[in-house]
Amino acid sequence: MHPPLIVINPNSNEAVTRGIDTALAPLRLSGGPAIRCLTLHDGPAGVQTQRDIARVTPPLLELIRTHEATSGAFVIACFSDPALAAAREVTRRPVLGIGESALLTALTLGERFGVIAMQDSARARHLRTYGAMGILDRFAGEEAIGLSITALGDARQRQDRLAVVGRRLRDEHYADVLVMGCAGLAQHREALQRALGIPVVEPSQAAAVMALGRICLDWEKG
Amino acid sequence: MHPPLIVINPNSNEAVTRGIDTALAPLRLSGGPAIRCLTLHDGPAGVQTQRDIARVTPPLLELIRTHEATSGAFVIACFSDPALAAAREVTRRPVLGIGESALLTALTLGERFGVIAMQDSARARHLRTYGAMGILDRFAGEEAIGLSITALGDARQRQDRLAVVGRRLRDEHYADVLVMGCAGLAQHREALQRALGIPVVEPSQAAAVMALGRICLDWEKG
Amino acid sequence: MHPPLIVINPNSNEAVTRGIDTALAPLRLSGGPAIRCLTLHDGPAGVQTQRDIARVTPPLLELIRTHEATSGAFVIACFSDPALAAAREVTRRPVLGIGESALLTALTLGERFGVIAMQDSARARHLRTYGAMGILDRFAGEEAIGLSITALGDARQRQDRLAVVGRRLRDEHYADVLVMGCAGLAQHREALQRALGIPVVEPSQAAAVMALGRICLDWEKG
Amino acid sequence: MHPPLIVINPNSNEAVTRGIDTALAPLRLSGGPAIRCLTLHDGPAGVQTQRDIARVTPPLLELIRTHEATSGAFVIACFSDPALAAAREVTRRPVLGIGESALLTALTLGERFGVIAMQDSARARHLRTYGAMGILDRFAGEEAIGLSITALGDARQRQDRLAVVGRRLRDEHYADVLVMGCAGLAQHREALQRALGIPVVEPSQAAAVMALGRICLDWEKG
Amino acid sequence: MHPPLIVINPNSNEAVTRGIDTALAPLRLSGGPAIRCLTLHDGPAGVQTQRDIARVTPPLLELIRTHEATSGAFVIACFSDPALAAAREVTRRPVLGIGESALLTALTLGERFGVIAMQDSARARHLRTYGAMGILDRFAGEEAIGLSITALGDARQRQDRLAVVGRRLRDEHYADVLVMGCAGLAQHREALQRALGIPVVEPSQAAAVMALGRICLDWEKG
Amino acid sequence: MHPPLIVINPNSNEAVTRGIDTALAPLRLSGGPAIRCLTLHDGPAGVQTQRDIARVTPPLLELIRTHEATSGAFVIACFSDPALAAAREVTRRPVLGIGESALLTALTLGERFGVIAMQDSARARHLRTYGAMGILDRFAGEEAIGLSITALGDARQRQDRLAVVGRRLRDEHYADVLVMGCAGLAQHREALQRALGIPVVEPSQAAAVMALGRICLDWEKG
Repeated sequence: MHPPLIVINPNSNEAVTRGIDTALAPLRLSGGPAIRCLTLHDGPAGVQTQRDIARVTPPLLELIRTHEATSGAFVIACFSDPALAAAREVTRRPVLGIGESALLTALTLGERFGVIAMQDSARARHLRTYGAMGILDRFAGEEAIGLSITALGDARQRQDRLAVVGRRLRDEHYADVLVMGCAGLAQHREALQRALGIPVVEPSQAAAVMALGRICLDWEKG
Repeated sequence: MHPPLIVINPNSNEAVTRGIDTALAPLRLSGGPAIRCLTLHDGPAGVQTQRDIARVTPPLLELIRTHEATSGAFVIACFSDPALAAAREVTRRPVLGIGESALLTALTLGERFGVIAMQDSARARHLRTYGAMGILDRFAGEEAIGLSITALGDARQRQDRLAVVGRRLRDEHYADVLVMGCAGLAQHREALQRALGIPVVEPSQAAAVMALGRICLDWEKG
Repeated sequence: MHPPLIVINPNSNEAVTRGIDTALAPLRLSGGPAIRCLTLHDGPAGVQTQRDIARVTPPLLELIRTHEATSGAFVIACFSDPALAAAREVTRRPVLGIGESALLTALTLGERFGVIAMQDSARARHLRTYGAMGILDRFAGEEAIGLSITALGDARQRQDRLAVVGRRLRDEHYADVLVMGCAGLAQHREALQRALGIPVVEPSQAAAVMALGRICLDWEKG
Repeated sequence: MHPPLIVINPNSNEAVTRGIDTALAPLRLSGGPAIRCLTLHDGPAGVQTQRDIARVTPPLLELIRTHEATSGAFVIACFSDPALAAAREVTRRPVLGIGESALLTALTLGERFGVIAMQDSARARHLRTYGAMGILDRFAGEEAIGLSITALGDARQRQDRLAVVGRRLRDEHYADVLVMGCAGLAQHREALQRALGIPVVEPSQAAAVMALGRICLDWEKG
Repeated sequence: MHPPLIVINPNSNEAVTRGIDTALAPLRLSGGPAIRCLTLHDGPAGVQTQRDIARVTPPLLELIRTHEATSGAFVIACFSDPALAAAREVTRRPVLGIGESALLTALTLGERFGVIAMQDSARARHLRTYGAMGILDRFAGEEAIGLSITALGDARQRQDRLAVVGRRLRDEHYADVLVMGCAGLAQHREALQRALGIPVVEPSQAAAVMALGRICLDWEKG
Repeated sequence: MHPPLIVINPNSNEAVTRGIDTALAPLRLSGGPAIRCLTLHDGPAGVQTQRDIARVTPPLLELIRTHEATSGAFVIACFSDPALAAAREVTRRPVLGIGESALLTALTLGERFGVIAMQDSARARHLRTYGAMGILDRFAGEEAIGLSITALGDARQRQDRLAVVGRRLRDEHYADVLVMGCAGLAQHREALQRALGIPVVEPSQAAAVMALGRICLDWEKG
């Protein structure tokens, strides 16, 4: 009997948590670990700045500590991987970030990855991460969909905009694999991949796969 | 009902295939894909040179084509990832190499990875791969256990030698995560990790985790 | 009349703040900006983990906001540069981190920099930073002095240990410039440089120089 | 009396072999090694995929072994350098690949190299090579001429298309030296260079120069 | 009483020297080092080629030696940093180049720097420098203003052209900080920064700040 | 009838010029370009500092201009490649540096190159060059033989010391190809390669090979 995987959405938006939960359904196997998706109620509506990251870190670490004894692994379900390094200090359980996992997964699907970000303002933060990960040689480009919150709420507009931005990454930046730069858009992955003809990585799924494997294998820290 | 994962040992050594099969047991979940481990009977006794890689490629591609219709994904279970790029051309199914998967997995477990190779002669080949993957900034070092085939057959000698080499990677090369540079040594992973106090990645397991996830999520090519 | 430079020691150790204050005395020029060194009283005794960094960030940002209207620039005086990216979001004033400033200054003084860290456990965190900064091609190595707090309190032991570690960086890692990896040890800089015959960068001084220049030049954000 | 240089065209297209042969005429010097250009009759019509590379490797290695005793050095005359690493294992004679040699030669003629490829599908494969060679910092871009085989057969169309693509590499990717990414187009090198005003490297010539030098100097393996 | 900072304009254009002198006025503090700006009368009208660099080096080193005894530090005020490495050999005083200092300063103000060069022909030379400095991972792009000398003499045309080129670097190359690639244009810095909304680094000021700090701190060579 | 290759020894030591001349004898083919080795009589006894490089540049450029009309190509025969970039500006003939050519040649002979330098003081200068060339990912290490001029004059001591340093590069730095970091030691190449069992590159020969090829092919600037 495996301990469950805890997936934490660090923003307080329950709709995003539900989107993640749905995205992970195919990974719920009868003989495998359960997957529980939690919302960080103390979190901001969205994690969009370094300040937001700073703000969600203490309650996020607290939440992890609360669940440590009864959990098998954790996924931090925000593309900026807030608190990831700190979380790995406070628990012996595996902790995966969806940004890191998605980027590494992309490296198995293409030579140059493009990132579809939510906002232009994320670029500098993301570039620091790609540099810290040491994977800039594989980076093709990053473009933001830049939709207003209202427009983001409309599935059709979202899908259209994802395709526009993805096409730009493919044709102008020479990306041959795309990473969706936020949680909660899993429903668009397959259509986007089909429209563009290159693989598309959904980050929550990428991270959950790696985390579930570690629970099954019982790979804890040395 | 998921199609099975096919794991191919490209050398003809059945003992290695059995070792891989055992290593993957924890990933066989009810409700999840079956895992079948095959031996490439046309393969050499070991894949140790670029020539060996060249030699196993045609039959390996043939084997993949034979199983394509009934399989969900493939793992090439040799640390040198022979035929990986070519295999990705011949099938729409996901193909993971244990070398690539292990190295990327290591990047989530430490800052600088060290590789325990079987032989010194592999170093140049491996370095080309790390360079092609664009991950040299995260490379700490590689050391070979360099045991004769007889000595390799003795579990105690193997374990001792793995620890000696791993300690060197940790203490002299500053590695904080280790990758076992060959298939079939999974039984030593946990003891090694415990002895050294840093995470150790077993490559067949790392690749199978990613491949199983793709089957469950039905991520085929765009 | 220039607004003052505010230097914030993010740990609660007043002795460190006093050490920084003394180190910056030569930069207090008549006609130039005043330099005020503050202690973050809510901070931990030392910033040694990612968690510590997470913990000091909210009060550090708060302190910056409190002083923004009356200050010309800020220096965050901890080698790990906690809250640096977030601080740059919350104020239009220049914010310099002593880690970043010291490393960049070192690049003008030698070809390969070595870092004298306080503890081995800082290495992974520092390496992420060097990678994020994109300066790993210039990195020679990092070694920790690893003294107990008691031993650290003894100036003679500190000096001896700095020289031992510095010599190792110079002779085994081929560093030709050294960076002192913490605030508060400025009194040892000159002796260390003289003992080793290669330049040594004191980080608080390196950062204050850059911050004072920006106040004088009135370079605020665009 | 020098042993001859053997240049192997790994595709079965005799017209390409003749083109290479003509391109190397200026390097046939009295007193110097003879140059023999061979066609790999077992090879595919063109080497365009990783599978093609896998397929030509065994007969190519066989051909090298056949000629080893009587030859001074080998050139593998396909821009993808198929079997290069393996060939270096099977013979003590120097083996040069035209891709590797052309790229390194380009580094002496400009700061950023652009590659004129035959097809877009080669990009991922080429990028892996540039990464494995560790020369991505000098890479400007790669564009394919993308002509049908019929159009490729027309010298005027070829020349026009080479100039269009070369101009794009120069003006949009900031290349200041170009590499022709296939064998057999040597006749266009000079006109292309004159049209664009930046150096153009013909790969068969670049490799033959290096290989002939090694025969004259008798630099075999250590 | 501090020894003065000597700023050397290595071209013979006195107007440039005066422009630098004016740019450094805010760094002249009553209690700080004096700043003397000198023209290298033996220098060319502009430093635009490697030959120009070669030519200015001997008289520049001579000038430094002449002033060494009575000076605190030197700034070489040409973006190509002519003679920088040699100057650091001939004097124990700190020597800063305005190119190097400006680029390092830019790394504290944005994630990807763009360089506004005077001429396209400088690109190859600059790229060699960025590579030698090991900072190419942070490089966004370089574009030249490419004005005739007459047009350069017109402040309005200069300002317009700087804005056009800067906008291109920001919008097409994704630069989030700009470096002015020559001395003597300090008067345009603030307007340019305001127009583009991203930080702009003026190189003479960046170097003078670092050099003045070293005089105050008495950081000479070890 | 080919124009001759001019090889310039930029130091005034005629013995070095004679050593180069002898080393190039195997490249003198009856039907190929003549090779003339010249001494820069205005040069220093040795090129050991940046200042020496600055000093030899003007007369070296002058010498090139003097021979331009009657020459086919130039080799600058000092491992530091003094004046290389400037020389490429002043003549349309190909100019090769022995350092650059040797390093690029080494990339075809091994995965990680080690450099045997004459003096430790060259390291910083060489590292800048490797960085500017963008080949640091392939760099294993550099060690100096550090012999006095008297000891250097003794062939036996030289040979012994080359072997000691080469062995260190191979065994401690993991170099699998070595570059001799100065001109004039060609007589030791073969013995060194035999003693160490890895390829050794003699730089004058490496450069002359490339230069002769360009004369034969008539590859001048575009």
